[in-house]
Amino acid sequence: MTHNDIYPTSMATEIERKFLVKHDGWRSLGRGTPYRQGYLVNQKGLAVRVRIAGEQGYMTVKGATVGVSRLEYEYPIPLSDAREMLDNLCEPPILEKIRYPIVIGSLLWEIDEFLGENQGLIVAEVEVTDENQAIDLPDWIGEEVSYDPRYYNANLVKFPYSKWSEI
Amino acid sequence: MTHNDIYPTSMATEIERKFLVKHDGWRSLGRGTPYRQGYLVNQKGLAVRVRIAGEQGYMTVKGATVGVSRLEYEYPIPLSDAREMLDNLCEPPILEKIRYPIVIGSLLWEIDEFLGENQGLIVAEVEVTDENQAIDLPDWIGEEVSYDPRYYNANLVKFPYSKWSEI
Repeated sequence: MTHNDIYPTSMATEIERKFLVKHDGWRSLGRGTPYRQGYLVNQKGLAVRVRIAGEQGYMTVKGATVGVSRLEYEYPIPLSDAREMLDNLCEPPILEKIRYPIVIGSLLWEIDEFLGENQGLIVAEVEVTDENQAIDLPDWIGEEVSYDPRYYNANLVKFPYSKWSEI
Repeated sequence: MTHNDIYPTSMATEIERKFLVKHDGWRSLGRGTPYRQGYLVNQKGLAVRVRIAGEQGYMTVKGATVGVSRLEYEYPIPLSDAREMLDNLCEPPILEKIRYPIVIGSLLWEIDEFLGENQGLIVAEVEVTDENQAIDLPDWIGEEVSYDPRYYNANLVKFPYSKWSEI
């Protein structure tokens, strides 16, 4: 789901594949939009996220996976409300990243370049409709991390990339 | 805040006075709308409420009191989304009540007749701008319970009226 989905929507199956990137070959392919996001709730089975994407606020509720789909609801909200909630109601720290949407063939890649406590981490995501769908991987795509929970945005808030080396 | 406030809004000072009712004299004065509401989060300092008022869904975020005001944000959402969230994501039980808006003079009274596990409880609320504002109390108004936390809707979910006698 991108920040262009401005209408309230509940989503059926959402399969996202996530990769690290090997080099900066993607940088010339898209323009970035700054994102700030935090969580009012961030627990197993339920997340309520507040996001600012560019100049638009969003509130998103994500539920547990039920069958093959995850309940997800996203609503546009006023920028000023989103700012107030991020500053006053969300658990710190606030996740900051620049998102670069890049269309290659029929696929929309979203490159997230993280800032703040997650600086140094760059992740590429693509949404597919079928887990076994073949994907043409651009040459800047590296290791797949789809199933590594450390890379979930909700977890990058709790345990940011800069602290991974401390284990 | 009533279900007629359909625009996203953050509120400044909200002072609500709450009373029990002595008799049914209010019943002929207004028509009721069924409400169902539940909480995605319901903790000290933060509540995220999902409400259906008549045929309209709402999502409301309420923060802690900061100074004299409480951060509050309410957004209309599709009825089907609200139903799904109440059925799948909110902590049971779901609070059910019939709300009767009644205008007397310049004041809007809201009578909440609770159902389900809170059946038997009827509460009248009025919003004022100043704690010391004089109010003409209708003759069906009984004991004031503004400062009794048992009557907070958020608490009526956790500890419903029907169980109060068990203490």
